[in-house]
Amino acid sequence: MSEELTYRDSGVDIDEAQRALKAVVPVIKASYTEGVMAGVGGFGGLFRGDFPDMSRPILVSSIDGVGTKTRVAAMVGDYSGLGHDIVNHCVNDILCQGARPLFFMDYYGTSKLHGPAFEAIVGGIAEACTKVGMALLGGETAEMPGVYVEDEVDIVGSIVGVVDFERKLPKKPKPGDVLIGLASAGLHTNGFSLARKALFEAGGMSVRDAFGDNATLGEALLAPHRCYFPSVYPLLERDIITGIAHITGGGLVDNVPRALPSDLQALIDKRSWTPPALFRLIQDAGHIAEAEMYRVFNMGIGLVLIVDRQAADGIINELTEAGEHAAIIGDVQTGANDAQIV
Amino acid sequence: MSEELTYRDSGVDIDEAQRALKAVVPVIKASYTEGVMAGVGGFGGLFRGDFPDMSRPILVSSIDGVGTKTRVAAMVGDYSGLGHDIVNHCVNDILCQGARPLFFMDYYGTSKLHGPAFEAIVGGIAEACTKVGMALLGGETAEMPGVYVEDEVDIVGSIVGVVDFERKLPKKPKPGDVLIGLASAGLHTNGFSLARKALFEAGGMSVRDAFGDNATLGEALLAPHRCYFPSVYPLLERDIITGIAHITGGGLVDNVPRALPSDLQALIDKRSWTPPALFRLIQDAGHIAEAEMYRVFNMGIGLVLIVDRQAADGIINELTEAGEHAAIIGDVQTGANDAQIV
Repeated sequence: MSEELTYRDSGVDIDEAQRALKAVVPVIKASYTEGVMAGVGGFGGLFRGDFPDMSRPILVSSIDGVGTKTRVAAMVGDYSGLGHDIVNHCVNDILCQGARPLFFMDYYGTSKLHGPAFEAIVGGIAEACTKVGMALLGGETAEMPGVYVEDEVDIVGSIVGVVDFERKLPKKPKPGDVLIGLASAGLHTNGFSLARKALFEAGGMSVRDAFGDNATLGEALLAPHRCYFPSVYPLLERDIITGIAHITGGGLVDNVPRALPSDLQALIDKRSWTPPALFRLIQDAGHIAEAEMYRVFNMGIGLVLIVDRQAADGIINELTEAGEHAAIIGDVQTGANDAQIV
Repeated sequence: MSEELTYRDSGVDIDEAQRALKAVVPVIKASYTEGVMAGVGGFGGLFRGDFPDMSRPILVSSIDGVGTKTRVAAMVGDYSGLGHDIVNHCVNDILCQGARPLFFMDYYGTSKLHGPAFEAIVGGIAEACTKVGMALLGGETAEMPGVYVEDEVDIVGSIVGVVDFERKLPKKPKPGDVLIGLASAGLHTNGFSLARKALFEAGGMSVRDAFGDNATLGEALLAPHRCYFPSVYPLLERDIITGIAHITGGGLVDNVPRALPSDLQALIDKRSWTPPALFRLIQDAGHIAEAEMYRVFNMGIGLVLIVDRQAADGIINELTEAGEHAAIIGDVQTGANDAQIV
């Protein structure tokens, strides 16, 4: 047989990718800050690299994905939150080092590009970037038939921010410092493989099941990753926070110690907050051990601030005024570099 | 049924991921340059952000993947080149803007983590970074059962480099400038979906088939993406190059115009070089139209330099001494912003 093959026949449609990209260019350009010197279209994005307000600028970078939350989005048919998920995840990560975001790059991998999902996700990425004053400086889209399961998507984001050396976190947390927990918006972007297996396989539930007031289980699961930058960054300018931990994969157990020196331990009192009902639902449906829950999920705490005990009440008041739900959930003591949840 | 579920049951094995990561930490750390202030383990990687040798530093960033070259690596059972592919692809991208690499972040997505493939790929990434004096500053590994096809892998890399404003490329290419083509090492990282369909489906060939001298077809396809930084960057310090185009997806047709202003056109003479036999094999097996070949594949030219005609011979001599195969393949003239291959 001598049929003529094209790239499109092999599952890669450059024209469709170009068309989908064109649709989101305006919202991408809306994210551009004054630091942007060249964005979409070039071989690389260009961003001003001088920071005249800093005596010793440090670039802080991170890369992450949203995990199988994409599968829940596909089940619900709503991709609008995933862009916020990946951006907010990355912004929170570099906030742990005291950094403010500069620019973001996204990668969209899929079996076959579907315009609406692409536009919802990349549009959401650009919006979430704009909200924190960060430029979406570039991105890549890849159609990989045979690597991705049909209609599945992976979303990767990489962030670059900056912090002045003298404001870099953590800065010497000490025994007696307290842990302030900030409420999460739900699962954020971790533990979705276990949550899906527990709820939809073991528990036989559906994303369309009612959950809470006027919501479905799917909506509760898709609640976007909360961004703590607007409420927390202003506090950093006053040197009252000694460490920050973003509660992602590994939960409180693995993440809080990352903000502590090797001779300090976190003691977390789990009676100091009530994990939202969604976590209990997952736990019950999957008969998941308590310890496993605390290693896989954030259990309702999305970010932990380590602060001087004297400053804690004032900080909680300020965070509350900024719209956070915040409370003291434990403290720091001398010990092995781990977190004990008691 | 009340069996207890764990994260591992849902297909995500944090312990195995930690073990695999530990195995590559030494080679990652070997990539650290003096700019690195904190790498693996933190919430973000930290890199010195002051560039005292530059009057107006510009950060240049790009993100990319290796496409379905991963599938050929799986067929051959050799993942050692893929890390070099993703790094070299990104290094070449920012070289088009005149930048030297600072740091790199990698993302490894798969259905289920297999230690040997992970170690070969991430080890290769670290090695390729070290070769160009770039730090592998961080990374992320994601196990996503149900999103990736079983045993399939996607590899994403993001790069940050820096260029001084006055050395930024392109810088006013003009009519009469010539195009110098630098030989590629093969397909690099583009067109693999079409190549696989042509060779293995339409052509019924196998990666184990003999190809050329002492090599197999699989080995020829897996030849790593060539890195042009060592041979080309020294030339940039002398202001004799007005533009650079990295020949990736879209081929010469789409990529050369990206380095030209809107009123200039590239005229490429395809008799000025012979595409390696691998491209002809793909074309014949898939009965692929000539024009389609030149839009999907690099056809043997991995990088194009745009230079003043007077300087061309000298540059070709220097590139040859540095180990490149380089030749004049066309020139620049007034016209619509495209590339004509004649």
